[in-house]
Amino acid sequence: MSRFLKEAFKSLSCYVPGEQFQDRKFIKLNTNESPYPPSPLVAARAMEAAKCLQLYSDPESAALRQAIAGLHQVKAENVIVSNGSDEVLNFAFLAFGDASHPFVFADITYGFYKVLCDVNDIPYVTVPLREDFTIRAEDYPDSGHIVLADPNAPTGIPMPAEEVEKIVQANPDRVVIVDEAYADFSESDCLSLALKYDNVLIVRTFSKSRSMAGARLGYAIGNEKLIVDLKLVKDSIDPYNVNLMTSAAGIAAIEENSYYMENCEKIIRTRRKTVKKLESMGFSVLPSGANFVFARHPGIGGEQLYRKLKDKGVLIRHFSSERIRDFNRITIGGEEQMDCFFNILDDCLNEL
Amino acid sequence: MSRFLKEAFKSLSCYVPGEQFQDRKFIKLNTNESPYPPSPLVAARAMEAAKCLQLYSDPESAALRQAIAGLHQVKAENVIVSNGSDEVLNFAFLAFGDASHPFVFADITYGFYKVLCDVNDIPYVTVPLREDFTIRAEDYPDSGHIVLADPNAPTGIPMPAEEVEKIVQANPDRVVIVDEAYADFSESDCLSLALKYDNVLIVRTFSKSRSMAGARLGYAIGNEKLIVDLKLVKDSIDPYNVNLMTSAAGIAAIEENSYYMENCEKIIRTRRKTVKKLESMGFSVLPSGANFVFARHPGIGGEQLYRKLKDKGVLIRHFSSERIRDFNRITIGGEEQMDCFFNILDDCLNEL
Repeated sequence: MSRFLKEAFKSLSCYVPGEQFQDRKFIKLNTNESPYPPSPLVAARAMEAAKCLQLYSDPESAALRQAIAGLHQVKAENVIVSNGSDEVLNFAFLAFGDASHPFVFADITYGFYKVLCDVNDIPYVTVPLREDFTIRAEDYPDSGHIVLADPNAPTGIPMPAEEVEKIVQANPDRVVIVDEAYADFSESDCLSLALKYDNVLIVRTFSKSRSMAGARLGYAIGNEKLIVDLKLVKDSIDPYNVNLMTSAAGIAAIEENSYYMENCEKIIRTRRKTVKKLESMGFSVLPSGANFVFARHPGIGGEQLYRKLKDKGVLIRHFSSERIRDFNRITIGGEEQMDCFFNILDDCLNEL
Repeated sequence: MSRFLKEAFKSLSCYVPGEQFQDRKFIKLNTNESPYPPSPLVAARAMEAAKCLQLYSDPESAALRQAIAGLHQVKAENVIVSNGSDEVLNFAFLAFGDASHPFVFADITYGFYKVLCDVNDIPYVTVPLREDFTIRAEDYPDSGHIVLADPNAPTGIPMPAEEVEKIVQANPDRVVIVDEAYADFSESDCLSLALKYDNVLIVRTFSKSRSMAGARLGYAIGNEKLIVDLKLVKDSIDPYNVNLMTSAAGIAAIEENSYYMENCEKIIRTRRKTVKKLESMGFSVLPSGANFVFARHPGIGGEQLYRKLKDKGVLIRHFSSERIRDFNRITIGGEEQMDCFFNILDDCLNEL
């Protein structure tokens, strides 16, 4: 760091994304990417947009917001788009959090929430998940704005919408952000709460279920007034946040919705097979509503298995925090990828 | 706004970009876009990238940073890339500014600096430009981190590098950010200062001279330690900030450097002709090192001329702050666009 970095940032720990190797080929099951490419229309539209890059994108992203609104049967005024869902989370933390408005989230959840609090100087409280890693609604009394990942990360456990609604009702004067990055792989979601309550914000991404991790496109849905707040922040730090190509790609991905929903079905089927196979090998696997599973094996530590697999050319994700250090997060890849993975996993376990 | 917006943001005024109409066709000389499209290689590479959007972009943007480093003969460690140059400005304000480290900038300059201070709760001091809108180096004693636009916006006036160096030398314990969004249209730049001093950060963009406003690609060059600071902020709020398509497009735009530098030459030639023509019509025009000119006419107020032109289908940019309200900022378009503009401008003046 330089001698100019402000004092408050000298101990800042940034978010560490899953490893991305540019040089060596791995079977990559560590960043929850989709094994399926975007539909051909996406690349075609992106190229059309790329021919006119000399012009700014629409700072309102009107066409894209309209397309998203149509997908979810809401109004464009209920939608804000962002450069990845991380960006709209940052807008929300900035808009609503300050020294007297802390954020509350689970002890085991997406690591980015803590980072966003630190970088924006917002206090936070973490609430332990139950022993089985589920969230107890009663643990969220009126003590701060709330952010929930549903399905949760990195456990993959979905939360019934009725349970989320209990939290919303117990916190009428707090914003409840439901980060639904993986909702398309789950049986339920909380979208209806965003229209029913004025304090609910649903965050979504095109990264996973719409095969657009590399395009950076996220969005939030909520009451018009909440969206106005987020837009104020957007226009203050990143007025033209979504580029022309991503915007065109996103509209195409909505037009081709059935292609992506079929891919989600395929991933859910592969997930079922993966869980069965892992269990047959002695793993315990948490219930997953996501495009990954979180699993541990009684015979080998989480980090040890992660390292063994990495040595053999397979990347999965290990987290070192205490409650989950026995586990690994394994992205659901394509059928062939998973066959390779299981062959190599077999080798690892046979070496024990 | 909602009842949840934090107190500090209730009076926030966000940045207002130049008007972007989606429905009506205008001659658009109001947002400093290039009249020339990107090179065909840019769209081709963007499309290749779009076929693999299911994968995340490299969070290090290693290849893109290497290409930019090559262009400027620096090391990749001296470069950070961002989702438009606005984003890297935000990183810098966040990294270095706090209650005891205010920012200092000119009274007439890019309006975004004030917004970034407000949204990040950083105090700021504005320093009046001279009567002729030039910057006096002596007006920047050791009183805070400094941000200079060079050439300045919206005046277009370039500042000699020796003058900037005087400011740098007078402020050894402050960061001096030189926002060179328009430097490719100027005869000088301050890049060499970024390697000579440990407190200089040069900010650039692909939006103007590289015809990529719609792709959102900016970068900063500076001492390695300053770049480490900015990267810490990036990884805390937007880890995968530059998408795959923009990254591929950016690398292509550097490979085709001569195409873009020729376009800059063309724009500079058109600028010279534009200045002459405006002067022949009675305008006074400030000296410009940018792809726009800032001009006023003794016979008509700035806002009145802006409105007259808009009624006739031409957009230019008017700013209402007191010292510059007689002026308008006119982007240098293509030769044909400028011919149309002058015909319509003629009509406006004849109506007086």
